[in-house]
Amino acid sequence: MEIVLPGSELRIVPRKIICVGQNYARHAAEMNSTVPEEPILFLKPPTALIGPGETVLLPPQSREVHHEVELVAVIGREGKHIPESEALDYVAGYALGLDMTARDLQLKAKKAGHPWTVAKGFDTFAPLGPIVPATAVPDPQRVQLRLRVNGTVRQDGNTVDMVFSVARLIAYCSEIFTLQPGDLLFTGTPEGVGPVQDGDVLVAESDVLPAFQVNVRRA
Amino acid sequence: MEIVLPGSELRIVPRKIICVGQNYARHAAEMNSTVPEEPILFLKPPTALIGPGETVLLPPQSREVHHEVELVAVIGREGKHIPESEALDYVAGYALGLDMTARDLQLKAKKAGHPWTVAKGFDTFAPLGPIVPATAVPDPQRVQLRLRVNGTVRQDGNTVDMVFSVARLIAYCSEIFTLQPGDLLFTGTPEGVGPVQDGDVLVAESDVLPAFQVNVRRA
Repeated sequence: MEIVLPGSELRIVPRKIICVGQNYARHAAEMNSTVPEEPILFLKPPTALIGPGETVLLPPQSREVHHEVELVAVIGREGKHIPESEALDYVAGYALGLDMTARDLQLKAKKAGHPWTVAKGFDTFAPLGPIVPATAVPDPQRVQLRLRVNGTVRQDGNTVDMVFSVARLIAYCSEIFTLQPGDLLFTGTPEGVGPVQDGDVLVAESDVLPAFQVNVRRA
Repeated sequence: MEIVLPGSELRIVPRKIICVGQNYARHAAEMNSTVPEEPILFLKPPTALIGPGETVLLPPQSREVHHEVELVAVIGREGKHIPESEALDYVAGYALGLDMTARDLQLKAKKAGHPWTVAKGFDTFAPLGPIVPATAVPDPQRVQLRLRVNGTVRQDGNTVDMVFSVARLIAYCSEIFTLQPGDLLFTGTPEGVGPVQDGDVLVAESDVLPAFQVNVRRA
């Protein structure tokens, strides 16, 4: 899936989808985990991306796919060793996103000390909402994130509760990877994650970001 | 880094670098692990790719970066749910590759049940040799893989010893991700992995694939 970078007419297939685990204390607690000392990073492949109105496909390999609503930062320019104080200058836009997770496969992987890649990386496991310019989000640490399943609110959090701020995450990532235009940073989910089923309608909402909907179907 | 797909003039930045862990029994043993029941998959970002003659940069975050020489399959056409019997038809070419690994960070991640992404994903951590057309490799399960550090052979294995064959890996991956032209599949390393240091010269060699060299420097 291509995205359009705010501030340019550039259409890009994101090369990196960097995601952050356990970045809200109450979500870490509901996962029986502690708050990490450093950001927990993992990657989704670009083939996981879908847009508004598209369909999340539940793979036969999993019996428990969870929703995780998140703030997504869209990187606008290349950078490495980015100071935290300048990190937000590298953000071209923001969107809501869903980090769909095969929870059963993730828990099995965690127990074995194996990567989370399969649990997080199936096709359609990275729904992304409409991207707005960064200027439309005055403070990325004051963004309400809400997720409805068939109309019922399941997650309702605020980025003020992040363990590591968006700026801190960008600085941290840039010490590992060169960040490039179109890279997406899924910044972690607040508490309230839970399973989705064939036929469910997921709506992500926010006070400052455009809402979007995806449908859920068995693959 | 762009690659050229054999059989076309297409220059592509690979979108997915899919890697396989513990795919040789004796390497699994040297890692104090057992042979996995299913392939262990993880992703490197495209920013990790470097070519022949380039330099692996040792990040300050790690004190122990290991070499892992591997057979790399280059995907030539799009596919999902690929039967194992047809899987090799999706391979455009092969190359030698190195799955550079911050072993200390990987072991820490494994113990905590965290992803391997940082340990495997630093810039320059995916050196790739020259790609030859798939027709130049009559049997991908009969490829000798050798890695020299400063002239001394450290790894010397053969893909006949893979736990999961290249065809099986492609079929398996295609049940999770849509494979796309230019995707790279790093198929796991034989035993003999070990640390590299500032100033080291790494040479990957094979009986059927072109050798290549990279240099190692502190970042």
